[in-house]
Amino acid sequence: MKKHILVIPGDGIGPEVTTWGKAVLEKIAEKFGHEFTFDEALMGHAGIEATGNPLPDETLEKAKASDAILFGAIGHIKYDNDPSAKVRPEQGLLKIRKELGLYANLRPIMLFDELLDASSLKPEILKGTDILFFRELTGDVYFGEKKRSEDRNTASDLMIYSRYEVERIAIKAYEAAMVRGKKLCSVDKANVLEASRLWREVVQDIAKQYPEVETEHMFIDNAAMQLVKNPKKFDVVLTANLFGDILTDEASQIAGSMGMLASASIGDGTGFFEPIHGSAHDIAGQDKANPLASILSVALMLEISFGLKDEAKAVTDAIDKTLKDGYRTGDIADANTDKSKILGTKLMGQKVLE
Amino acid sequence: MKKHILVIPGDGIGPEVTTWGKAVLEKIAEKFGHEFTFDEALMGHAGIEATGNPLPDETLEKAKASDAILFGAIGHIKYDNDPSAKVRPEQGLLKIRKELGLYANLRPIMLFDELLDASSLKPEILKGTDILFFRELTGDVYFGEKKRSEDRNTASDLMIYSRYEVERIAIKAYEAAMVRGKKLCSVDKANVLEASRLWREVVQDIAKQYPEVETEHMFIDNAAMQLVKNPKKFDVVLTANLFGDILTDEASQIAGSMGMLASASIGDGTGFFEPIHGSAHDIAGQDKANPLASILSVALMLEISFGLKDEAKAVTDAIDKTLKDGYRTGDIADANTDKSKILGTKLMGQKVLE
Ligand SMILES: CC(C)[C@H](C(=O)O)[C@@H](O)C(=O)O
Ligand SMILES: CC(C)[C@H](C(=O)O)[C@@H](O)C(=O)O
Repeated sequence: MKKHILVIPGDGIGPEVTTWGKAVLEKIAEKFGHEFTFDEALMGHAGIEATGNPLPDETLEKAKASDAILFGAIGHIKYDNDPSAKVRPEQGLLKIRKELGLYANLRPIMLFDELLDASSLKPEILKGTDILFFRELTGDVYFGEKKRSEDRNTASDLMIYSRYEVERIAIKAYEAAMVRGKKLCSVDKANVLEASRLWREVVQDIAKQYPEVETEHMFIDNAAMQLVKNPKKFDVVLTANLFGDILTDEASQIAGSMGMLASASIGDGTGFFEPIHGSAHDIAGQDKANPLASILSVALMLEISFGLKDEAKAVTDAIDKTLKDGYRTGDIADANTDKSKILGTKLMGQKVLE
Repeated sequence: MKKHILVIPGDGIGPEVTTWGKAVLEKIAEKFGHEFTFDEALMGHAGIEATGNPLPDETLEKAKASDAILFGAIGHIKYDNDPSAKVRPEQGLLKIRKELGLYANLRPIMLFDELLDASSLKPEILKGTDILFFRELTGDVYFGEKKRSEDRNTASDLMIYSRYEVERIAIKAYEAAMVRGKKLCSVDKANVLEASRLWREVVQDIAKQYPEVETEHMFIDNAAMQLVKNPKKFDVVLTANLFGDILTDEASQIAGSMGMLASASIGDGTGFFEPIHGSAHDIAGQDKANPLASILSVALMLEISFGLKDEAKAVTDAIDKTLKDGYRTGDIADANTDKSKILGTKLMGQKVLE
């Protein structure tokens, strides 16, 4: 199979971790006889530094021309502390999601048995957890109109959804539920928000087409609670952009570390694959970042964008084996970890490659 | 001391639990020589059933005339599954918050040592956690304009904040931080939302008046994660209405159960005290509900609205003792609980009274 992959390292630890995602793709191509070609492009703070634009035109063109995109991370502390900055790294990520029509963000919460102890949740609460989040990605308060009054004392964002936006992601989530545990939990705040009431109406409509799937509607506050209380009860979780942002980060703690979670953004065209962790500037360039989420992003790319199941499995098996052999990065190490097996980004990447 | 207290039992398990809150207030009056008088009023589904209005005029009048309000819970499953219902129980709660100017919702996350094992978090992660949330309660997407297009296919809610709304709650939160651990974490989503950028600007301004307090700004997705990962790191948490709704419910898991958490809503006038749990219709009327959150609401009322510290302490001591004696309601029982000490609402209420 011939595929052209765009690597967008982005900011902070992005470049370090995507290096290993790419290395794994090369290894897979070699082992399974595929031909993967690569290109690289800038986004976020890196884009601003080079061109003044968090999503340079060239990056968008390259993205559209590629078969899949491997992304690192975005963001810079400089902008976080300056709420009045006009140009911000995150705008690049939001714009590429919109431009590529990446309306569905899939975040699987998989649990590696070896990492049960790295979580703050009790192992008996965790064991058996297997959740697939569908987070809507191109609507909601993220993209609704933003306003600031002239005296700068009032600010607003419009939380807005249209029927078709909810429909298309609901269908994807129900399709996934059909080949999984046939349970779907839709999360909203329909007791307060009109956008959530529309959300719930549409999901109720789509649910009728999937009578085999057991549908539950849950308020976001309750969902945030249940996720800690009893994560096992969830199978497919379907939710809006903002609620999905919050819930999936919370759920990452279940998997032991953000460093262990990847996400796939899909929709109208090219798929976009990235770790769910951020740019983590505090550890950037120190060979401390966990490359496994980037490598897991590659597994998602192989499976979802290229339909290469065996290749995807080879990647997750390699991660599994590395963990079984006792190797850990700092973020997933615990009191029982053999200190000599706590590795930096590079050595961890190499272990998986081997 | 003479005080007039309005009891609003509300829906579901509300009446069962407020009965015990009220009984504790009577006991305290007797023991400490105060004169507490009581009245009762309807709200929520109970209000709709009786008058068609989730907040009957009479309730609002009585509320304004009282020195403090003890509230139960709100909501009914009937409306949750009907997103197109025009009149909803929750409107009563939202309206009374707005009418009484209850802009600051205080939610202390206290940990009773006896309940360490009831949480899904590991005891070593939990131990020492002591968080005071300040959730803004009369602004945000809760109260911004709601719209539905004529064809009903598009729906929106306006997320909106003005400077003074952020200022007044920020000041309350900083004042609390000064008499606690002198650490404040403000939670927003300033990398995406304009309302959050205003929020952050204002908090940065107020922070300058409290140089002794260590201020941190955190994105909501990260906060939802850190709360599970390392709850001990938080002292005072300041956040907007919607984010606060989500974070405090999530945090309730830390305290072992929602049944153990109370909240105080304060602002321009009469204070409003309630458990953070919902109406829990599935167990309503079955003598299963945990009355401790309502009793803890009473402790908050005694301390915050009436300035009666010793009385408040007598209440929390009584709860402490009951737990130490091994008594539990079902929600906070665990594998080690002596089965004969698992009590219903009534017996638990009585134990605390004793
Ligand atoms: C960086 C930020 C804009 C982004 C989001 O909120 O969507 C991130 O948190 C994510 O979840 O991908
Ligand atoms: C019932 C609902 C409107 C309410 C809210 O979202 O504020 C509740 O969840 C709460 O936290 O008090």
